[in-house]
Amino acid sequence: MNELDPAVAERLKRTPDGLVAAIAQQRGTGEVLMMAWMDDEALHRTLTTRKGTYYSRSRGTHWVKGETSGHTQHVHEVRLDCDGDTLLLVVDQEGAACHTGDHTCFDADVLLAPES
Amino acid sequence: MNELDPAVAERLKRTPDGLVAAIAQQRGTGEVLMMAWMDDEALHRTLTTRKGTYYSRSRGTHWVKGETSGHTQHVHEVRLDCDGDTLLLVVDQEGAACHTGDHTCFDADVLLAPES
Repeated sequence: MNELDPAVAERLKRTPDGLVAAIAQQRGTGEVLMMAWMDDEALHRTLTTRKGTYYSRSRGTHWVKGETSGHTQHVHEVRLDCDGDTLLLVVDQEGAACHTGDHTCFDADVLLAPES
Repeated sequence: MNELDPAVAERLKRTPDGLVAAIAQQRGTGEVLMMAWMDDEALHRTLTTRKGTYYSRSRGTHWVKGETSGHTQHVHEVRLDCDGDTLLLVVDQEGAACHTGDHTCFDADVLLAPES
């Protein structure tokens, strides 16, 4: 099978440019690591290879997480949300999830701190 | 102050319709509860009231989580990701986070199950 299962494809609610949001969460700790985008092919490749595979809007290409950095994502579980526009991936992240070298993409910029 | 802090506003990378993605995560357990959208006003209201406030693309209006259902979100922390297009909210969710009555919006549809 070279294409996304039609039974899955028909449940997706895509942006005008054909994408759904994908949240990667570390298995065990529950940390939210990053958010990226997937088109049907990226999702198909993620489901069949268990390697986190996304679509870059800026570059217009697919990318496999860690392919250049070595910071791969092994995908344990993929869930689709109630309205079909967001995926949740439960992963084992190798090394830093963020291209900046941070552990997660949400480490650097706190807009609102917890109440003291 | 009635508007989003310009120092924050200039760090946001919005969709063509002016929105950023917002992931709500339960404090303590780390569960990912839901993903929704925010414009500048929704973010400003969230930061100043600590009540999860979003923008509905389909209805074209702001909504405060739990305003009709009672399933409110108290926001402890807000973080912006490395490329400025996604927010992570650490919240205390009252009751079900999903409008279907499920605990999270990711409970119902498993596309890929963990390896057995």
